[in-house]
Formats: sequence, structure tokens, C-alpha cells
Amino acid sequence: MRVQDIIAVKRDGGVLEEEQIRYFIAGYTDGSIPDYQAAALAMAIMIRGMEPEELSVWTDAMLHSGSVVDTSSIPGIKVDKHSTGGVGDKISICLAPAVAACGVPVPMISGRGLGHTGGTLDKLESIPGFSVDQPVERFCELVLEHGLALIGQTEDLAPADRKLYALRDVTATVPSVPLISSSIMSKKLAEGMDALVLDVKVGAGAFMKTEAQARELAETLVDIGSRAGKQVTALLTRMDEPLGEAVGNANEIVEAVDVLQGRGPEDVTELTYALGAEMLLLGGKAGSAEEAREILHEAISSGRALETLQGLVAAQGGDAEALVDHGRLPRAAHSLHVGAPAAGVVHAIDAAEVGIAGMLLGAGRRVATDRVDHAVGVTVRRHVGDEVREGEPLVTLSYNQEKGLTEAVGRILGAYVIGSGEVEQGPLVIDVVRGEPR
Amino acid sequence: MRVQDIIAVKRDGGVLEEEQIRYFIAGYTDGSIPDYQAAALAMAIMIRGMEPEELSVWTDAMLHSGSVVDTSSIPGIKVDKHSTGGVGDKISICLAPAVAACGVPVPMISGRGLGHTGGTLDKLESIPGFSVDQPVERFCELVLEHGLALIGQTEDLAPADRKLYALRDVTATVPSVPLISSSIMSKKLAEGMDALVLDVKVGAGAFMKTEAQARELAETLVDIGSRAGKQVTALLTRMDEPLGEAVGNANEIVEAVDVLQGRGPEDVTELTYALGAEMLLLGGKAGSAEEAREILHEAISSGRALETLQGLVAAQGGDAEALVDHGRLPRAAHSLHVGAPAAGVVHAIDAAEVGIAGMLLGAGRRVATDRVDHAVGVTVRRHVGDEVREGEPLVTLSYNQEKGLTEAVGRILGAYVIGSGEVEQGPLVIDVVRGEPR
Repeated sequence: MRVQDIIAVKRDGGVLEEEQIRYFIAGYTDGSIPDYQAAALAMAIMIRGMEPEELSVWTDAMLHSGSVVDTSSIPGIKVDKHSTGGVGDKISICLAPAVAACGVPVPMISGRGLGHTGGTLDKLESIPGFSVDQPVERFCELVLEHGLALIGQTEDLAPADRKLYALRDVTATVPSVPLISSSIMSKKLAEGMDALVLDVKVGAGAFMKTEAQARELAETLVDIGSRAGKQVTALLTRMDEPLGEAVGNANEIVEAVDVLQGRGPEDVTELTYALGAEMLLLGGKAGSAEEAREILHEAISSGRALETLQGLVAAQGGDAEALVDHGRLPRAAHSLHVGAPAAGVVHAIDAAEVGIAGMLLGAGRRVATDRVDHAVGVTVRRHVGDEVREGEPLVTLSYNQEKGLTEAVGRILGAYVIGSGEVEQGPLVIDVVRGEPR
Repeated sequence: MRVQDIIAVKRDGGVLEEEQIRYFIAGYTDGSIPDYQAAALAMAIMIRGMEPEELSVWTDAMLHSGSVVDTSSIPGIKVDKHSTGGVGDKISICLAPAVAACGVPVPMISGRGLGHTGGTLDKLESIPGFSVDQPVERFCELVLEHGLALIGQTEDLAPADRKLYALRDVTATVPSVPLISSSIMSKKLAEGMDALVLDVKVGAGAFMKTEAQARELAETLVDIGSRAGKQVTALLTRMDEPLGEAVGNANEIVEAVDVLQGRGPEDVTELTYALGAEMLLLGGKAGSAEEAREILHEAISSGRALETLQGLVAAQGGDAEALVDHGRLPRAAHSLHVGAPAAGVVHAIDAAEVGIAGMLLGAGRRVATDRVDHAVGVTVRRHVGDEVREGEPLVTLSYNQEKGLTEAVGRILGAYVIGSGEVEQGPLVIDVVRGEPR
């Protein structure tokens, strides 16, 4: 088999055969197929697309490029959640313990932030001592003992994806529905989950700017899951303005704990319930969304959800006390209010720009090798629909170094659209796409 | 400027800006842009295409990736010829001296064979002692003294093309009209010619299988030339069956000399005149094609064309005597007739298969690093339209080693289509595309 002949099939808009896909992924993983051939194929896939069955095989080949976690020792239907990435998205940190407290095991492997989006691992690492690097055996033990685990990707899970992901970043082959979907699903399938709830973000702060794009991605993800024999539900959720008030790392931990204490911002709380209800349905712990929401509410209001998180944080080496005593979390030395340039009503906030402002302060990464300052971030004080007077704080920037501060202020001012009159907002959850395993 | 942003423009079907093109080609040439980014861009160009002005800039950037030969010391309009590659195409070897003998300087830089097509350099190297590696200064001296030079590409001419050409071969990005055109024209423009005649082959033995494909390539090549201020004429010529009788190396030298002695095969002679007439027109040595043919005929029948070749061969270190005393050329140890499996009329000969048969005997290269045996080859004894009796030789294979012989025989038998009734053949020269410098 000649690699250029495989590439030529996709170049000409054809469908790759299973044998060709497995040969390519295996060769790329072991290094016998060089980056330049993978780059050419990725571009051809990017432009020509993939058929559903072809994509299913491609994902399966990526999944089996490394080891697959065996979670069979953990009883119950293991349900994970994945978000396509937004600004202020701390949902995993309150959602996973809430769902686990309802009896659904949550084996969660998360990622790091890049560009305007944050990463769950970075947020968790603002808890002193907390370690996201856990071996696979420990990962299963944690889920058995605590009902959940919150770890980072290990070297041997879907290594083909890790290589291809890095290559796509520098070859303009990122925004491809089949390549995004197979990347997400190969990692999720490798972690040994039985069912998955996806939060597919739509809007200015999301990767997918339009509902049509997001729907195509959601349907593709659900279809891959179905073909792999897994139940997958995807929620299309709005990501125009930042989610909640906190954009950063330590401040997002505080906000996630607020949700578990019943005092989180409305949108963060609602999204936690919406995603959590779907997880309980998939996990067989509720018969309807209403029942699931009641069970979740009980787990939160009783304090069991927070206790579950505290138990896990301690088990992963973290300072569980810091979750409720916020003085133990990293705190920025300085803060600055960014005032409204005019009076009016907030018509829009470009979440991506707010995310970049946070990144400029050090809360995120411009490139993958950048270090994150967990203490800094943005607090969003005025949301879409809010009235503001001239000079009233729109956001507060928390920072340690002046570097990037001026540009961050500029980004914030550019992100806010202040006008007059009422603002109509769509629902947070736009739609739900459900799949059935085949 | 980020390379992935440049790639993204072409990925999305946009037009690259001059600044982006020059940045990319310069970076790829000096190694700061890696192969995988070039592979992604090549695939995007392959699928999306290029606008004429964009392609003109791309070609110019490739041309200026290295040095450009200064031929200003050579008086007259320097005219070169390039063929897109066929089987049995020894035309350069008789054409260049014939045209030079008519007073048109011919600065010719040729290539080597690969796959089913032969290369002028390999053919020339069957002349004992002949050296195709000449420094640029010597190249100009040869054209000044002998009216022509026949050399190989030097390291510093269009290095971007050399890198990209090798990359395209392994990334399925070869059959792209803009990439083929810019590769050809960047090299030709770098050698310092004033005008160019292109032999764009069409048919089973050619890269372009259909007239429409060949016409698109011809028009693109002519347009690039016009935009670069050069007069370019492209002939679309038939390449279904092999050109002439000899397919190999030393045997093709013999056939080229036959043309200069007025006894070459009809098709090789006709193509030499057709291309030569266009070169004389571009070189300002004739006012019409008829006049040009008369001048060429005089140069050949007087022996001046052969003397010109002999003078150049000696000047490039070769045994000029071998051109007329063929016992001095390499000769194969064995020969084998491949007989007609049935009586009838030859309806078609797949030139590519005949080329591969020659390659299998050692006359060509499967991969660029293979060594060529100059002595071996194929002699085509029955052409399209010829009647054959059962068992009569279709071709004679000349070989030194039995390796590849059986497969070569099979290829020959598969290449010949023998049927009954008359065969209609189109003209050798299908059309002429002329350009005017802008």
C-alpha cells in the first residue's frame, strides 16, 4: 500500500477503505508515515469531508492507536460529559460531583486551555496540591471510591490524536467537522465511558459560530457514538457572552463551588442542571428530565454534591478546605475596574474577546507551552440585558503583572456593545440531539 | 505572518496575496517553513486551484528562490523547448542542434526520466564521456560557441521547485495544473531563455490523458510565460503510441541522429520540424512556418545540424564519433522478439506500458535513486495502423539481465491492441496555442 495512493483517494473526493484508514493511522502513530503525508491527508479531509461510516472507522482507528481504559470493574453505567470549549466554562467542576452524588459514575478526562478558551485541568490546578496526573489504575480506583475522577489525558490514550491535533494546529486543518469529531470521540471512547453528554457551544465565544455548524458537529458526534455502540446526547448551548461571572482559573473554582452551594450564577446553575439531567437519564437514575432535576437538586441542597467534590479533591492530593475557604486559593495582587464608556443597555459581549483579555493577563495560553497564572482573571459584572451608567464597572480585571493589561482593557471595551432599548435573548439550551447505540 | 493563516486562505478557496506567496516560498526554500505546512498548502492548491495572476506571482517567487542565469552576453533571441514527457521522446537531441544550426541560440536545461517516461539527460549520458553537469558560466560559453548547450539542472536554479517537486511526489499533489505549470516555468525562466516552445503531450503515454486537460495545461503555461514577458508557444501533440521506434537511451541517440541524417522515423522527423519551425519563428529567423521548415531542411540536409551536435558533444566531453559510429555506444548483450499473439491490424499501443517495459529492463527508473542501464531498451517494430501476421515481432527487447524480462514481455503484450479493419489516426500535432508577452 502506498501512502500517496491513500491520500489521492481523499484528494479526489472518494471514500477511504477500512484497510487504508487503519494502515494510515497505525503508520502515523508509529512514525513510519511522516507529518507531511498526514498534513496532505488532513487538508484533503478538511476540504472533501468524510462519509459517516468512513468517519466511524477513522475514529475507531484513532481510538485503538493506544490503550483503552478498562472500566469494567466499576459497576453502573459510566457517563462522561465533554464541552467543545467556551469562555467561563467551569461546568465540569460542579457537574461531575453533582452527578456522581446521584449515583452515576463519572470517569472524566479533561484538557487544558488554549487561546481564548480555558481548560478544566488548569482550573483544577488552582486548588493547592491537586494533581491531575493520575495513572489509569488510580483513575478507576477514584471512580470506584468517590464516584468520579478528574484527570488529564495520559500518554497512551489515543496517541494518534495527540500527534494529529498538534499537526492540525499548524497546517490550517483545525475547523473540520470530521477531524474535530474524531479527535473528541477517540479520546472519550478510550477512557472507557458507557455514555456521553456533549455540550456543543454555539456563538461568538465558541468554535462554531452558527447554529447550523454546531448542529452538524453535534449530529456527527452523536452518530460516531451510536456507531461505536454508545449512547450519546448532545446539547446545543449558547456561548455568545461568557458563562457566569468568573473567567480565569481560581475564580472559576469559586464559582463552581457556588453552584454546589446553591448560589451560583443563574446561567451556570441552569447549564449544570440541563447537562446533569441528561447524564442521569443516560445513567439510568431518572425516568424523566423533571425527575432528574429533582434528584440533582436534592444532591446539591443536601450538601452531598459538595462533599463528593471535597472527597475527590483530597484523594487527588488537593486542599479540600480551599473549596470553602477561598483565602487558601491563589489570589491576584491587583485589580482594575473597566468602566462603561457610555450609559445604556448591554446588547452583546463578545465572549472570545473576554477570553483573550483573560489570556493576556496570564489566565490562559497563547501557545501550548505558555504557563498559566491561576490567580488572575476577569470578573464579568454586567451581562447582556443589564443596564449600565457611564463609568460603572463592566468587568474587574485581577492581575499580577502590568504586561498585557492595556491590551486586555482594550479587548474588554471592544467586547461590549452598549445600546438602547430592550435586548432579546434566546434560550441557553438551544436544542438537544439524542442518539441510540446501533 | 502566520503560515497557517496563509494555508487557510487557499483552503477556503481564496486568492493568496503576493506578500503571502513570497513569504511562503522564501521560508520553504530556506527551511524555516517545514514540509508538513508545504504539503497542506500543496493539497489546498491542488483542490482549490489558482487564479492566473496568483499563479504568475507564485511562479516568479519559485524562479527567484535561487539564482537566474544571465544570458545577456549571448546575442540573439534565445529559444528553448520543453516537453511534458512522453515515451520515446528524443526530440530535444535532434531539435536543439537543428535549430541552433539555423542561428537561434538554444540554452537547454533538461531533466531525468522517472516511471514510464525517459529523460534527455539519461539519453545523452549514453554517449561515452558526455557530461551534463556544467557550471553556469560554461553553459553560457557553450551556447555562445556552439549555439546550444544540453545540461542538467544546477543546485542553485529554482531550489524551491526541487524541494516542492519531491514533496508533491509523496503527498499525492502531482496532478495539479498550477503546480505542474509553475514547476516547469520557474525552471525555464531561471535558465535565461527569451522564448519557449512547449510540447504538451496528450494521450495514453502522457501525463495529460485528455485533450481538454492538455489544453488547460498548455494555456496555463503560455499565460505564465506571457505574464513574465516571454513569448511562449505550446503545441498539443499526440502521445498514444511511443514516438518513433526506439525507447531507451543509446538507441534513442541513434534515432535522433537518424533524423539529423534525414532518415529518421516519420513521426519523430515531423515533430522535430513542427517544433523547430515554431522555435525559428520565435527566434526571428523565419517569417512563416513554411519558410522555417525550408531553413530547417537545409540545415539538416547540408549536414550542419549534425555537425553542430557533434561539436557540442565534443565540447561537453563526449565521444562525437559515437554519433555516427554506433559500435561506440553501449549495446545490450541479448535481444528478444515479442511476437504478435494473433494476426490483424495494430489498433493501439499503450505508450505508458511500453515505457514501463523499458523501465523494467533497466532503461528507466522506478524511483529517483535507481540507476539507468543505457544499453537496454525497446525497439517498436509495428505501429498503429500496421498489419501483422501471427508471431511476427511487435517489438524487440534489448536487455542485459533477465530480471524484469518476463514482466516486460507481459507489459508489451498488454500494450498492443490488435484487431481487424482500418484504423483512423488523428494528426500528430493537434493544435498550437500561442501567447504574446504582456
